[in-house]
Amino acid sequence: MYVKKLAVNEENFVQPIIDLNLSFNSNDGHIDREILIKHDHDGIIQTSTGKNLLFCDAHFKDNLQSMKRNAALIIPKDIGFLIAECGLTKQSIVMESGSGSGGATAHLAALCKKVYSYDNNPKHLKLVKENMDRLEIDNVDLKLCNIQEVQVPELVDFALIDLPDPLLAIGILKKTVKQGGYIAFYTPQITQAQQVIESLDNNFRVLRTIELIQRDWVIEEGKMRPSHSMLGHTAFLTIVRLFDKER
Amino acid sequence: MYVKKLAVNEENFVQPIIDLNLSFNSNDGHIDREILIKHDHDGIIQTSTGKNLLFCDAHFKDNLQSMKRNAALIIPKDIGFLIAECGLTKQSIVMESGSGSGGATAHLAALCKKVYSYDNNPKHLKLVKENMDRLEIDNVDLKLCNIQEVQVPELVDFALIDLPDPLLAIGILKKTVKQGGYIAFYTPQITQAQQVIESLDNNFRVLRTIELIQRDWVIEEGKMRPSHSMLGHTAFLTIVRLFDKER
Amino acid sequence: MYVKKLAVNEENFVQPIIDLNLSFNSNDGHIDREILIKHDHDGIIQTSTGKNLLFCDAHFKDNLQSMKRNAALIIPKDIGFLIAECGLTKQSIVMESGSGSGGATAHLAALCKKVYSYDNNPKHLKLVKENMDRLEIDNVDLKLCNIQEVQVPELVDFALIDLPDPLLAIGILKKTVKQGGYIAFYTPQITQAQQVIESLDNNFRVLRTIELIQRDWVIEEGKMRPSHSMLGHTAFLTIVRLFDKER
Amino acid sequence: MYVKKLAVNEENFVQPIIDLNLSFNSNDGHIDREILIKHDHDGIIQTSTGKNLLFCDAHFKDNLQSMKRNAALIIPKDIGFLIAECGLTKQSIVMESGSGSGGATAHLAALCKKVYSYDNNPKHLKLVKENMDRLEIDNVDLKLCNIQEVQVPELVDFALIDLPDPLLAIGILKKTVKQGGYIAFYTPQITQAQQVIESLDNNFRVLRTIELIQRDWVIEEGKMRPSHSMLGHTAFLTIVRLFDKER
Repeated sequence: MYVKKLAVNEENFVQPIIDLNLSFNSNDGHIDREILIKHDHDGIIQTSTGKNLLFCDAHFKDNLQSMKRNAALIIPKDIGFLIAECGLTKQSIVMESGSGSGGATAHLAALCKKVYSYDNNPKHLKLVKENMDRLEIDNVDLKLCNIQEVQVPELVDFALIDLPDPLLAIGILKKTVKQGGYIAFYTPQITQAQQVIESLDNNFRVLRTIELIQRDWVIEEGKMRPSHSMLGHTAFLTIVRLFDKER
Repeated sequence: MYVKKLAVNEENFVQPIIDLNLSFNSNDGHIDREILIKHDHDGIIQTSTGKNLLFCDAHFKDNLQSMKRNAALIIPKDIGFLIAECGLTKQSIVMESGSGSGGATAHLAALCKKVYSYDNNPKHLKLVKENMDRLEIDNVDLKLCNIQEVQVPELVDFALIDLPDPLLAIGILKKTVKQGGYIAFYTPQITQAQQVIESLDNNFRVLRTIELIQRDWVIEEGKMRPSHSMLGHTAFLTIVRLFDKER
Repeated sequence: MYVKKLAVNEENFVQPIIDLNLSFNSNDGHIDREILIKHDHDGIIQTSTGKNLLFCDAHFKDNLQSMKRNAALIIPKDIGFLIAECGLTKQSIVMESGSGSGGATAHLAALCKKVYSYDNNPKHLKLVKENMDRLEIDNVDLKLCNIQEVQVPELVDFALIDLPDPLLAIGILKKTVKQGGYIAFYTPQITQAQQVIESLDNNFRVLRTIELIQRDWVIEEGKMRPSHSMLGHTAFLTIVRLFDKER
Repeated sequence: MYVKKLAVNEENFVQPIIDLNLSFNSNDGHIDREILIKHDHDGIIQTSTGKNLLFCDAHFKDNLQSMKRNAALIIPKDIGFLIAECGLTKQSIVMESGSGSGGATAHLAALCKKVYSYDNNPKHLKLVKENMDRLEIDNVDLKLCNIQEVQVPELVDFALIDLPDPLLAIGILKKTVKQGGYIAFYTPQITQAQQVIESLDNNFRVLRTIELIQRDWVIEEGKMRPSHSMLGHTAFLTIVRLFDKER
């Protein structure tokens, strides 16, 4: 993992620690590297200024939050919905295209058995590779190719299509997805969802197109209301099942 | 798995098949059990009336949909969000209370390493046991007990609290969750979220309270609009992290 | 007004009274017509069974709620938004097509100076006429005609277009709306909003397309949450302004 | 009106004109004041650089948009909903407290017969007075007083309560609102709505508490999606009716 430890002060401010061989410095004071190195369990360390800091192991989420990005990531509400809605398990084999910054890749790889990820942009792939390394994820097969040239070595339980032109993926999905397997099209525009649905032949069953609106709440002394700032939109999610009668 | 196979007709109507030793009958015609037994791969079988039916293996989701329920299940938008938001992986150890009908249990068990599930209602436990058996899930530890008596054999990465009185769980969480681990309170009432937040001491860090509004869209010839029918509410999700400075 | 009076019992159950010349009967008891006729002010009357009933004048809203309908009415969130967003006043001259059941007509007529309402369905017009009579509204000019044949006797400040094919209205709007006047297209389908926007020439300025999602809350002893039942969708509202440079 | 005229260029950019005695200057060129003064009807004027500008009368909405504000205005979705939901008409007598910046005041005064507006902050009143003058609204009675001291000269059909402590208004409402009249509590916090509901005695009937979520859509060549930026929250609207059985 890239973020190894967390240092948490008494106000629950969390500071990620990447290099365990450096001494620690913050507004809460200083801790020598010798002390840190010996401190290999979760627990309190006192700083030079007498503050108590909780040092504990970082979690996967801490590392997710440190991912580098060059494009908008698929956020938890959307990737989480797809994982649950499509019934993924730790035995699931999945594919995705494009790879983006690896946001969906990371969740799918962490939860499923194997992820095949395809992108035609070398910069994207480089970034996803770097992100997977930092997350210590080793079950992702990254390939540079156009979606029409994708050749997945095995049939997959789930395919996630997040492409500027999702229609290009339809042909390849028939060769790629198990009978009864699930496909999710992640499309910012509702017209893209419509085009996908209109382009699918009788070997696909469209289950639903949804959007999830996330409202954060402010709950404090004397306040209890939805947050004024709100992300109005991420994408429409179209869930489809393959029943290929010509295979 | 309880649902073993699917029979899919040309209109993509899906019929789940539970007992492979029975002959098949539907509006699409009849298939003898001898033919079905020999047909051990995915593919087309012709019925007595000449219709082509695709027979294929059922997926986990088909079995999720056949779960028995005695209470409202936590639905994909909510359990999926929690799984992604809290960064769960297939190495995660999780606990939940109550067990409900096992809706969240099934997703967590399918994706994570181990689930400890506690409920004080023997009827709930019996149903969850039955549902886990049908789903062939064997990594759930089900226990009958009140939340205050919960003793999890190991520290967990994630705890899901879905109880009529979530405040009863707070004390037990300190002994149960890893340093930096995540806790989700699933509360139908916003006042419950407020009470939880007010009851947490400085060893917990409240990350956020959110709700997810799911809109289904109707996309057909000449139609493109949100569905008129809509589930207005499930629950508020409060995400908290434990940083226990007294441990 | 059609509903003349209200009878309100101690539990605040409201019973509308249409004919003041009939005696009153309900679960709360009986009141003779002679007593009711003499009771020409707001106040309490005791029934035969000793219950106190508050008799008071009905309001416009009570009469709105008694309107007959043959189609979905434009509901308060939508007509109210348009009235405020387009800056209508009691001096405003407005037109609408179609007339529907007269739901929007009633609000516009109650608040504005004059409403011209056009529909090509005699049944609709008959119903709207009846509804306006019951509401004692006399500033609505109802005409049977297709939208393309509409001839409004004066330029209007606001036009509301709620037609299966809203594109048919565009030509007529140029002859009908004042310079700088507002036009609202009420379209159930988002594709209709798109078609409207694409069909408007440079003499129209598109201000916005919005939808309003209404969430009702349940607030009772121990409950505080959005209602489970919810209307998922009514329509998209596209607001446009006419700046006719060829007039 | 403060904004007298609009100058609209060929790209439908709208420029408000306040002083008709000044010559016009913009990126589209120059027009002498002599020409403008003679041009007393809607129509095209050519600028010094040969551009055609449409000059037309400003509408009420143009003036609403030029209002000065010292606090958040009640926006169209909310004030519009209240006007329609409570069945206001041009005969309605209404009261409000506080006056805020006069946003609700302006709509209510423009549509209804008479508005009584109360605020205990002289700065607010001064601003509302100025705003009403600019809008040429003369049916608003503005008074400086605390809500508990409000004395409305006549019973009102509708009362709008937008106060930091809405509970202070409850006593005064009984003396102020007609039998069966409507009251709207505009409260940013859901807990305020709860407190209002709990504080109302049996002479009030609570009809509903709602919130309206407004989603703006982006509809352009190749784009059709909700806007990414979105106002997450304004207020909860609690609608109540007075049936005073002790009057």
